[in-house]
Amino acid sequence: MDLKALAKANPDHWSKATAIRALTLDAVAAANSGHSGMPMGMADVATVLFEKHLKFDASAPNWPDRDRFILSAGHGSMLLYSLLHLVGDAQFPIEELKNFRQSGARTAGHPENFLADAIETTTGPLGQGIANSVGFAMAEEMQRAQYGRKIVDHRTYVIAGDGCLMEGVSQEAITLAGRHKLGKLIVLWDNNNITIDGPVDLSDRTDQVGRFKSAGWQVIEIDGHNPDEIDDALTQAKKGSKPTMIACKTHIALGHAAQDTSKGHGALTDPEQLKDAKAAYGWTTGPFEIPADVKTAWEEIGKRGAAEHAEWQTRMDAVSNSKRAQFERAYALDVPKKLSATIKAFKKQMSESAPKLATRASSEKVLEVVNPIMPETVGGSADLTGSNNTKTGDLGVFDIDNRKGRYVYWGIREHGMSSAMNGMVLHGGIRPYGGTFMCFTDYARPAMRLAALMQVPTVFVMTHDSIGLGEDGPTHQPVEHLAISRATPNTYVFRPADTIETAEAWEVALTSKTTPSVLSLTRQGLPTVRTEHKNKNLTAQGAYVLAEAEGKRQVILIATGSEVEVALKAREALQADGIGTRVVSMPCMELFAEQDEAYRRKVLPAGSAVRIGIEAAVRQGWDQWLLGERGRAGKSDFVGMDRFGASAPAEELFERFGITAQNVVSKAKALL
Amino acid sequence: MDLKALAKANPDHWSKATAIRALTLDAVAAANSGHSGMPMGMADVATVLFEKHLKFDASAPNWPDRDRFILSAGHGSMLLYSLLHLVGDAQFPIEELKNFRQSGARTAGHPENFLADAIETTTGPLGQGIANSVGFAMAEEMQRAQYGRKIVDHRTYVIAGDGCLMEGVSQEAITLAGRHKLGKLIVLWDNNNITIDGPVDLSDRTDQVGRFKSAGWQVIEIDGHNPDEIDDALTQAKKGSKPTMIACKTHIALGHAAQDTSKGHGALTDPEQLKDAKAAYGWTTGPFEIPADVKTAWEEIGKRGAAEHAEWQTRMDAVSNSKRAQFERAYALDVPKKLSATIKAFKKQMSESAPKLATRASSEKVLEVVNPIMPETVGGSADLTGSNNTKTGDLGVFDIDNRKGRYVYWGIREHGMSSAMNGMVLHGGIRPYGGTFMCFTDYARPAMRLAALMQVPTVFVMTHDSIGLGEDGPTHQPVEHLAISRATPNTYVFRPADTIETAEAWEVALTSKTTPSVLSLTRQGLPTVRTEHKNKNLTAQGAYVLAEAEGKRQVILIATGSEVEVALKAREALQADGIGTRVVSMPCMELFAEQDEAYRRKVLPAGSAVRIGIEAAVRQGWDQWLLGERGRAGKSDFVGMDRFGASAPAEELFERFGITAQNVVSKAKALL
Repeated sequence: MDLKALAKANPDHWSKATAIRALTLDAVAAANSGHSGMPMGMADVATVLFEKHLKFDASAPNWPDRDRFILSAGHGSMLLYSLLHLVGDAQFPIEELKNFRQSGARTAGHPENFLADAIETTTGPLGQGIANSVGFAMAEEMQRAQYGRKIVDHRTYVIAGDGCLMEGVSQEAITLAGRHKLGKLIVLWDNNNITIDGPVDLSDRTDQVGRFKSAGWQVIEIDGHNPDEIDDALTQAKKGSKPTMIACKTHIALGHAAQDTSKGHGALTDPEQLKDAKAAYGWTTGPFEIPADVKTAWEEIGKRGAAEHAEWQTRMDAVSNSKRAQFERAYALDVPKKLSATIKAFKKQMSESAPKLATRASSEKVLEVVNPIMPETVGGSADLTGSNNTKTGDLGVFDIDNRKGRYVYWGIREHGMSSAMNGMVLHGGIRPYGGTFMCFTDYARPAMRLAALMQVPTVFVMTHDSIGLGEDGPTHQPVEHLAISRATPNTYVFRPADTIETAEAWEVALTSKTTPSVLSLTRQGLPTVRTEHKNKNLTAQGAYVLAEAEGKRQVILIATGSEVEVALKAREALQADGIGTRVVSMPCMELFAEQDEAYRRKVLPAGSAVRIGIEAAVRQGWDQWLLGERGRAGKSDFVGMDRFGASAPAEELFERFGITAQNVVSKAKALL
Repeated sequence: MDLKALAKANPDHWSKATAIRALTLDAVAAANSGHSGMPMGMADVATVLFEKHLKFDASAPNWPDRDRFILSAGHGSMLLYSLLHLVGDAQFPIEELKNFRQSGARTAGHPENFLADAIETTTGPLGQGIANSVGFAMAEEMQRAQYGRKIVDHRTYVIAGDGCLMEGVSQEAITLAGRHKLGKLIVLWDNNNITIDGPVDLSDRTDQVGRFKSAGWQVIEIDGHNPDEIDDALTQAKKGSKPTMIACKTHIALGHAAQDTSKGHGALTDPEQLKDAKAAYGWTTGPFEIPADVKTAWEEIGKRGAAEHAEWQTRMDAVSNSKRAQFERAYALDVPKKLSATIKAFKKQMSESAPKLATRASSEKVLEVVNPIMPETVGGSADLTGSNNTKTGDLGVFDIDNRKGRYVYWGIREHGMSSAMNGMVLHGGIRPYGGTFMCFTDYARPAMRLAALMQVPTVFVMTHDSIGLGEDGPTHQPVEHLAISRATPNTYVFRPADTIETAEAWEVALTSKTTPSVLSLTRQGLPTVRTEHKNKNLTAQGAYVLAEAEGKRQVILIATGSEVEVALKAREALQADGIGTRVVSMPCMELFAEQDEAYRRKVLPAGSAVRIGIEAAVRQGWDQWLLGERGRAGKSDFVGMDRFGASAPAEELFERFGITAQNVVSKAKALL
């Protein structure tokens, strides 16, 4: 590349873009780690985007009607941090950049949404940003339909690299965006032809233009270092009724000795090469120093959106109080006041009618009362609507001609669905839940982890939660998936035993602002075990005494979900033999662990009673409740799964694997 | 559809295809569950494939040079079972079909590779079959290059549905296949335009033809009910130098009242409708009855490949003894005799030189001695070759013009890589291992679970296994992934402490025939802790006493991987204070759990010693070793992670999260 020609052709642009490159070089050198090449390659694109197109106000990075900027290629975090510093975001003074990748800095190795207001989403695991962005763009469509374009009218811009596009989830994302004609979604592909292992060609020769077109996208190909081409492409993209992919041909690590090589992807820290690169840029100031005129120009860009923001505020102030309250409530992730009463009334009714229902059907019943009072909920399923029971009567289907629809047919895209749901929460104003078979937690995992890490309360409705699924066999029968979700920090895993507990689980999930929830629900019918109505949400305590021992307490059975019924039957048999047996229902281990010790000891007292855990899943995670505190005299055992399931009718499988009241009774007696 | 016209146009074909439809209807009716529509829709395609193209011998379904037939749309299992019964596979008598989806039957809800010789792979989780098939096709190319086309020369055929193509992993698979011009891979797409939620259009409008072309595939579009078009397309596909996708326009549940509807996807059990469908087919025999002439015709098809098989055997018999022995050894998943001695010699050398190495580098050292003596190993990485240390000098890179290459640049496709590796093992003759960052276990999960379920010894090389990864931050720092893999049945999770344990872990992984292995390896350097050479593979016992207490044993520290160093330092400090401290290294919990009780008690004796587990990960899975047996008087604690990590230099993170010798000492003293 002839850098001098570039600089000469557009000197103002050049100096602004070079500021990003210089800051990147300096920060990576200071940290002695990081990824230099991407920010250096995409600096021109980002500069034009921020200067001429992105609607934002550096003084109010959380303004609801801002355009969203998502750095899907999260390793290039210095691009984002440089931009935020340059435009004058108060959370990104130069000290933050000097502390790049250091303990306590906002400038983490990869952008973390919880560290700064302007960071829309956490990226790094490739493909997640582009998949989130589908949720951002859907949320905008939904909110615009609901509140009107005076209040909601913004775009979602994504910078994605080759890695993002190679990950399978990107295909799920782009086909969803194409299907729904998300015309306000614009992806800028950093087409630098380099991955860590070498040229992209080593591992991939996909015609990305053809691929995006096959998914229903507009595609524009440009020189990613030519500001006019970038500007024109963005102008054209904004006019499209389809999502747009702009293929930006770039040079990774532009101007550095490592330009156009895989070495350029990583940390470029050699001081001589850094000096040479800056010289080639014509950049003469010291490390972390931006010439005053360049900084001023960037700060002007940062103020560009202030007027738009103010105008929006004026329009917002004119909106009716109730509409505005709803908008703000949903953005704040507050629940409507009447949710609590609604859930209580529902529980009362269910305690009285005591239906025998699969908890997936219980969940539908809960949603039937919740969705009408929470216009911010958006349901969906990865092509298992009838099985996941996620669609209630009033939602309407989200589609090109029905942006008010609150139900999404996600297709067979568990990962894309989950990641887009995270995007919806991050966008603001939407509380999404989505269903699949629990076994396909495996497909959704990368997004489920990120929900937990990002502290977004996405709800994963995981039905068919054990061998109770029956004939479909071991590929579809979760055994380790409860343990998997429980192992994940900041995740509530609910396994409700009946309709009441399901309602309580939903109430916790819907009131959570920072923790995602997994609802583990049965395919098979379960009796109502909570026939005595209690206003209190017992599930919120994680575990509680469902049935007390009569006589001396010799046995404590601890069970979840479908196995609570097994425990109650076993208790009956044990009590008939004069063995006092308590049944503890434990719908959420995480919440139980959060209770104070006094409560925990009340539910699971020390002492000599035999403890048996019952759950049609692996034992991992149970020992804390079974083996208990040091010196406890009581023996313990576990009734569950220690292998994969099998294909057969469900009742036979419970027999075969010994998840029966009879087996529980035998084990209890053997230990007494 | 005018079934009469179809029948009249090709009566012989029609009756053969109808046999599949009738058996499907009967079996689903008998089971009262299952998926009728796909076998009924794809019966014509499958019939022509088996009759005229697929190289197979029903009497020898495991013949190494057979074509592979993969039912990626595994829910349509009755298609496969019908075919296997009809062609006379001895494992599929009619009784098996009558027992469809029942306990103990080979005819599980979804095809399970371990239940019958002719079932090449387990499918059901969508997209897995098509992703496996890339591994099958690569394995064929590799083996053909190694042994010559007289011994290895076969194709891989896949039937995939809309669900397979919507899953992101299919994009990873088809772009890999296109990149490597896997011309002997042929995908038959059941283009029936129906998913469970309704028409495909509800959730997807992808131009699949354009998509596959963008990935470098030949695409042929046909009427999937026209046997001549099917035949011609297969003939053309077999000539291609690119992989071929045949888009077969079909009618789901052809001829049934539910034809062309999402209801047709599932179990069609209504007796009247079943009767009507059979009448429309002109099918007059009773349930599970095949007219003699039709059965005979199918059995002739089953014998079609016998001559080819015999000729192949003759050619195989002419191959040199050594080459043949190697071929057969690799197919049997036996290791070369000298592996054991090689590992021992390596261990001895390493014990003596006692290098300080990251275990990912230790792993590379092991591979440097293993790969030359095991020509069946195939290495690779999902674009992290230099970080995963998976490439050794002698492997050569697998490419279009170098099919002998044993290293695969998988690109940023953790899921596709893992699934293709499973396919390689299932194909036979290859022992693959592949690397990524351990955190991206999340992306690979669906395939890692299937490796365990399918009982294939794929090796997952997971480096950067803790906060020791440092600055890249929490998106890249596993904390729950050890627990996730440990929760999965039939999976060995190794977390070696040094080069010796890494070699031992590799030895177990490479000698395993039915269990996949996860190698959890550090980014950061670790000292050699096993400085005294022992021939015995101590890692194969799962845990062992690494350092004995001096004086009265008051503390037992149990640690894995990088935390063994922490334990040894803590022991030093405790011993200095006169506190007798044993250090147990526990590189593989699963193997330790498999030891007899006497050994386990020897390593972790009952009694009053304080136990502290140390692992830079969540506690889940540890309680079994810490809380231990009933009535144990000793207290216990755990030093690890109870939250996500952070972005900072690694040493600072270990300090911040308290994973230090000092903290271990404090905790031990607090408990004493």
